[in-house]
Amino acid sequence: MKIIENPQEMQSFIKEQKRAGKTVGFVPTMGYLHQGHLSLVERAKRENDLVVVSIFVNPTQFGQGEDFDIYPRDFERDKNLLAKLNIDVLFYPSVEDIYPSNYKTYVEVYDITDKLCGASRPGHFKGVTTIVTKLFNMVLPDRAYFGLKDAQQVLVIKQMVKDLNFPIEIVPCPIVREEDGLAMSSRNVNLKPHEREAALVLSKSLFAAQKLILDGERDGDKIKKFIAENISKEPLANIDYVKVVSAENLEEVKEIEGEILIALAVKIGKVRLIDNIMVEV
Amino acid sequence: MKIIENPQEMQSFIKEQKRAGKTVGFVPTMGYLHQGHLSLVERAKRENDLVVVSIFVNPTQFGQGEDFDIYPRDFERDKNLLAKLNIDVLFYPSVEDIYPSNYKTYVEVYDITDKLCGASRPGHFKGVTTIVTKLFNMVLPDRAYFGLKDAQQVLVIKQMVKDLNFPIEIVPCPIVREEDGLAMSSRNVNLKPHEREAALVLSKSLFAAQKLILDGERDGDKIKKFIAENISKEPLANIDYVKVVSAENLEEVKEIEGEILIALAVKIGKVRLIDNIMVEV
Repeated sequence: MKIIENPQEMQSFIKEQKRAGKTVGFVPTMGYLHQGHLSLVERAKRENDLVVVSIFVNPTQFGQGEDFDIYPRDFERDKNLLAKLNIDVLFYPSVEDIYPSNYKTYVEVYDITDKLCGASRPGHFKGVTTIVTKLFNMVLPDRAYFGLKDAQQVLVIKQMVKDLNFPIEIVPCPIVREEDGLAMSSRNVNLKPHEREAALVLSKSLFAAQKLILDGERDGDKIKKFIAENISKEPLANIDYVKVVSAENLEEVKEIEGEILIALAVKIGKVRLIDNIMVEV
Repeated sequence: MKIIENPQEMQSFIKEQKRAGKTVGFVPTMGYLHQGHLSLVERAKRENDLVVVSIFVNPTQFGQGEDFDIYPRDFERDKNLLAKLNIDVLFYPSVEDIYPSNYKTYVEVYDITDKLCGASRPGHFKGVTTIVTKLFNMVLPDRAYFGLKDAQQVLVIKQMVKDLNFPIEIVPCPIVREEDGLAMSSRNVNLKPHEREAALVLSKSLFAAQKLILDGERDGDKIKKFIAENISKEPLANIDYVKVVSAENLEEVKEIEGEILIALAVKIGKVRLIDNIMVEV
């Protein structure tokens, strides 16, 4: 496994590989890897000649007062995990190389970025689409892999790739959960033991809501209310949002039909967690 | 010369050519080609295995009340000119294929786009950087050629390419002028004969200002005033702006030093013309 820190070196290396006819799979991450990330890597390995994983905690997608400073980081641990998976390149650029002084350019997807997490975290998706554009141009992948825990992010990136004509296939990959149902997240490490217990209320509420729908409930508002009431019973939980939306455009649905996304963001103590489930009826 | 209208076809064709090891030079235009454009094409031919010229009058870079509707268009004429130059691909996409319904993504360079033409034409450069990003992703060039008549555009595109890490070299090319000094522009065709005569006041003022500086004048404000007075003597001319700025960051300069850009935009009748000159002292 090659470790590259310099963006120019990353780009030159890949251009050379592509001239040699290799296909490139890319997994962008913010590090502190869990099995969710590793499942993306495994899939990328199956589908491409060469796999690049990036680790970059992107400051522009964190708002003021958010958890950029305490976002978990452990490069040695991540490096060892990736080396075991035998990936080709670990790309680990510095903030200074990614956003040099005099940096002036942003990529923005409108409309679908105003909803869900975008409503709670203004500017978040602008930071995401900008860094992903930059990483795409540095890594020049044929396929890029994103986890569906960030369902809105997947939708935003797909929209951006389509709109800006990137020659890249976006591959959404299923959420990976702990045995007890908690969606894997690098942020879970910031939960204290009793918070870790309380955090189960997210997945449990989603699974129960899914069951209600499969049992015949079709009223979006009732599902929302059911989940909100469920979560409110947990004293450590503070709801940011609970939404039942179209999986296609994130518009709220009154009458559940077709493919819908139930998405939520909940603060457990100081840790903001997200989770979601897709339901098709 | 291959004519391609479909964006996907454009991208597939180029990917195939690049797999075969060909380098790609790209000249994006809005058509109604003049010798300025053709000089870009000639240079692209010298420096690359394959040359793509696009013709697309990009609606998103025109503001309300601007000249999108009367921007000159003549595809047959352009096609014949390019066929004679023996380029490889003429890319001629439709507005519907470039901005399909449900289009949501824009690329924006901040700061340097607020000045000069950006101040007079809000949103103009956002339209430019968005379409250029899209065209870059469709044509995947190694080098892209831009004329320095749009000096600010060149600076904005260079900033965008650096910031977003596009694997593309931007090649700025000199202004091409008519024999009497008028900078070539597709818009010149919209000038009536007496306006065409009046339009000479742009280049004449710039050349005279250049001479003043080379003769020792170093006061930016005096140069601006000199040009403005010169232009005001022409009854058909209405000044949009006259600026003496740093060629590096477009900040106005009081004391002329290093590489500066004298840039102006002037309406002759209903036709808005721009011109500029670089001076190094």
